[in-house]
Amino acid sequence: MSIRIIPLGGLDEIGKNILAIEYKNQIIVIDAGLKFPNEQSLGVDFIIPDISYLIKNKKKVKAIFITHGHEDHIGALPYIIPHINVPIYSSKLTGNLINVKLKDAKLLSESKVNFVEPRKSIKIGKFSIEFFRVCHSIPDAMGIAVRTPDGLIIHTGDFKIDHTPVDNKIIDFQALSEYASEGVLLLCSDSTYAEVSGYTPSEKVVGETLDRIISTSKSRIIVATFASQISRVQQVINSAVKNSRKIAITGRSMMKNITMATNTRYINAPKESIISIKKIKEIPKNETLILATGAQGEPTSALVKMSKNQHNEINIEKKDTIIISASPIPGNETLVSKTIDNLFKLGAEVFHSKTSFVHVHGHASQEELKLMLNLLKPKFFIPIHGEFRHLYAHGKLAYESGIEKSNIFLLNNGDVLDVNNQTGQIVDSIPQNEIFVNGNSIWQDPGNIMNERINLSKNGIIILSATIGTNPPSIISNPKISSMGVVDFYQNNKITEMLKSNAQTYLEKYISNEIDLDTLNIELESSLVKLVYKQTFQKPKILVEINIKK
Amino acid sequence: MSIRIIPLGGLDEIGKNILAIEYKNQIIVIDAGLKFPNEQSLGVDFIIPDISYLIKNKKKVKAIFITHGHEDHIGALPYIIPHINVPIYSSKLTGNLINVKLKDAKLLSESKVNFVEPRKSIKIGKFSIEFFRVCHSIPDAMGIAVRTPDGLIIHTGDFKIDHTPVDNKIIDFQALSEYASEGVLLLCSDSTYAEVSGYTPSEKVVGETLDRIISTSKSRIIVATFASQISRVQQVINSAVKNSRKIAITGRSMMKNITMATNTRYINAPKESIISIKKIKEIPKNETLILATGAQGEPTSALVKMSKNQHNEINIEKKDTIIISASPIPGNETLVSKTIDNLFKLGAEVFHSKTSFVHVHGHASQEELKLMLNLLKPKFFIPIHGEFRHLYAHGKLAYESGIEKSNIFLLNNGDVLDVNNQTGQIVDSIPQNEIFVNGNSIWQDPGNIMNERINLSKNGIIILSATIGTNPPSIISNPKISSMGVVDFYQNNKITEMLKSNAQTYLEKYISNEIDLDTLNIELESSLVKLVYKQTFQKPKILVEINIKK
Repeated sequence: MSIRIIPLGGLDEIGKNILAIEYKNQIIVIDAGLKFPNEQSLGVDFIIPDISYLIKNKKKVKAIFITHGHEDHIGALPYIIPHINVPIYSSKLTGNLINVKLKDAKLLSESKVNFVEPRKSIKIGKFSIEFFRVCHSIPDAMGIAVRTPDGLIIHTGDFKIDHTPVDNKIIDFQALSEYASEGVLLLCSDSTYAEVSGYTPSEKVVGETLDRIISTSKSRIIVATFASQISRVQQVINSAVKNSRKIAITGRSMMKNITMATNTRYINAPKESIISIKKIKEIPKNETLILATGAQGEPTSALVKMSKNQHNEINIEKKDTIIISASPIPGNETLVSKTIDNLFKLGAEVFHSKTSFVHVHGHASQEELKLMLNLLKPKFFIPIHGEFRHLYAHGKLAYESGIEKSNIFLLNNGDVLDVNNQTGQIVDSIPQNEIFVNGNSIWQDPGNIMNERINLSKNGIIILSATIGTNPPSIISNPKISSMGVVDFYQNNKITEMLKSNAQTYLEKYISNEIDLDTLNIELESSLVKLVYKQTFQKPKILVEINIKK
Repeated sequence: MSIRIIPLGGLDEIGKNILAIEYKNQIIVIDAGLKFPNEQSLGVDFIIPDISYLIKNKKKVKAIFITHGHEDHIGALPYIIPHINVPIYSSKLTGNLINVKLKDAKLLSESKVNFVEPRKSIKIGKFSIEFFRVCHSIPDAMGIAVRTPDGLIIHTGDFKIDHTPVDNKIIDFQALSEYASEGVLLLCSDSTYAEVSGYTPSEKVVGETLDRIISTSKSRIIVATFASQISRVQQVINSAVKNSRKIAITGRSMMKNITMATNTRYINAPKESIISIKKIKEIPKNETLILATGAQGEPTSALVKMSKNQHNEINIEKKDTIIISASPIPGNETLVSKTIDNLFKLGAEVFHSKTSFVHVHGHASQEELKLMLNLLKPKFFIPIHGEFRHLYAHGKLAYESGIEKSNIFLLNNGDVLDVNNQTGQIVDSIPQNEIFVNGNSIWQDPGNIMNERINLSKNGIIILSATIGTNPPSIISNPKISSMGVVDFYQNNKITEMLKSNAQTYLEKYISNEIDLDTLNIELESSLVKLVYKQTFQKPKILVEINIKK
């Protein structure tokens, strides 16, 4: 028998959001995350992985293990659970975040989320699975060890090696040593920063910078970060308390996460130190600190509202100090940049990741990745979590660390890798699609919708409608033009008139029986396309709507 | 009398593309560049500055001085010259690049481009202007010294301080010293990298990396860079020749620029070293190097075609070495990333700016900016070239370097700064618009087109058309539905039927005289919006086209 490893998901990031491990008739799933849209995914909230393979093999799927509580690892659960309602296993904080999510989706009562301590093993058929502690930009992040009859598989989850994490819980080197002495058949390791040399700095470094800014600021301080960056929030709270500042929170997700994390003791804050945003005005400005959403420039977030003078409670003033404790996710650069610009224009002093050490990321750089490879000395290696270029860079590190070239597998999503204790090979490839989510709509693009949207976004649309009678051929209503997003169609009746009169000649050809109805539609459209191009050098979509008298 | 400084242009980058200096009844203009579109500028090739102020004061405008030959400094000339045909002054290479551009626009014969040596002064009314040499990522880049009766103005252009540039022409420290001893009234200095600490590395560093990669590669090498990066091209040619490789060129702009630069001796290459792309197949792979366009992932460029296996001459193979000697311009990250991914998937080894030192940028970092400030010791300071955040960072450096706070001016485009040898203040603000160029269309968005495009791109459009008679009210043709870019409208006749039947009821209300024509249009649309949202949770644009029987 052999083990099958199948990364699932969309087109770009490989094995990032969901990975299946199959042995005989049993499948366990690691992570169930979503992907954020890029510029090509117009009007999409997020993208979820293609789980048709899992649905087809529903009876084999036994459990879902979640490494940590970020959206790109838990966000697809509400879309998977209705199809495959198997037990979910995770650490405590992760489980709490999953429950918040399942509750929002009204799936809480029917789901089975199990909180598991690290190093406690769970038997599922021939598998024996345990979590081990790693460091990442959210507490309670775990790697996963999967024991199979063919050998031990280690999945790192997202990780970095932080020797001084905020919660003092370092990566479990003891567990790693034990796995190494047991012998690791296969390592699947985080490739997100495999192109970056050196070490990723510790989260503590950020704490020191925050503390320096907070202790020297002479007026109000506003700190924006990810709502899920619980260690960061803790460091901000620590510094605020130390500097005798009261803390107020603004932004729905920030409020929700801090409340949950305080209740479950993942955040420690003296009760009297947190006050409501409405009360903050009653306190001298230099004794206040506001924690806000908006570190990614999200249009409806608290910080962005402040930057546009649209926040209900806070008006940015000269002397305000603003800290954006995050770096922009690819695609959000312009939004973040615009927000920073607007805040500076309002007179505030803004500290952000390009100018100060107010953010570090949560992924291992090359030296840490090599350490992981050398600690575990796996026989087989699959770089996961990253675009192909990152997998390539990580594969190169593995090769340099002594793993045989033929034992390193750069997979695409859908590839089925078959490994046993002797050999490994790609035996199949399951076609993967991106599944788009927008509001309550979920759809798999047959290729048309996105292309149509891209085309509309670049050129706009012109609609020509008219009504004819067919028996005998007659013109019932004359051509009429509407347009959206088309250049030169504002205050330019000349072109509109030209299009109408062009259409009129085709309608007349029809009533004089020169052309039939099909030809009318086809020739009219192509003639309008040419005419618009000649007049405007633009190629908007031309829609011809000939209504027919009943 | 006093001098007026007016940065013109669009909304984001200040003073980047065009700057007016006005004294009495005379205006000289520095640079005339374009801006590349961002994600918000849908279907736009580029954005040109708003020159309505110059057109209004056409008689005052005496000359245009261009600092260097990059698109963001010369690209708007073809749009300005037809309105304001004044003499253009520049260095030789810059002038040649301008002439190529004006020739393309069929404006060459009527334009007056003057090639000026550095340190030769040109008298224009009360102004006396001279160029002085700076370093940037294109040869022959110049700063500008403008002597006025009120004092000396220094405009740095885009610059860095490179002590070992490829053409051995370092920044003209002697000129800077002379200006300093003369006394500088006002400095306008490049802020692009004002947020970055330290020094920008020399272009030579890139040469060393390129040479190391080129000398150790065992098969074909493909290098992509900007066509205007003439020093980079020279370094690639040097290394190829040294390593006995023949060079072929692919990509229209690369071909054009290298031909021009070779003819004017800005590039030196042994004649026999360059061969045509068609001949390259006849030579052993390890004796070839290909210079290609596509460093920004431009969809129709040579490298992108190769990455998709669509290039006419070159098929990427295992062992090919590809060097992308550029970093992505903001907004192009995804395109570049995708290209790198595809090249790796084809088996090539790709070196790019995130993994190797194959690119340095052409702008001064903080230490260089402070050096410029301290060398010149200006009374007044305007940070230019950058978003507001960059100006802020640069302003802070100036303050730290000893310039009085009240003498540092962070301007927005359109602000009119009035300075004399005593004081400076903003006296006016001229509203600025972004002018969009797409193909041969030029338009100033009245706010609607771009918003409509953004809306169409996110939600698509549904068109409902029908025909009625008005006297007496009657239904001539039944409702008909078309859609573009709308989710759930493919293979979902159920929703289409619901919309039609909803429309039918409104038409019947009309023929039974329950509602009039205006009400029909308004109520039908709003009812369709609600129905679509209820069924699909989407908000596409709904266009109701009621045709009326004539």
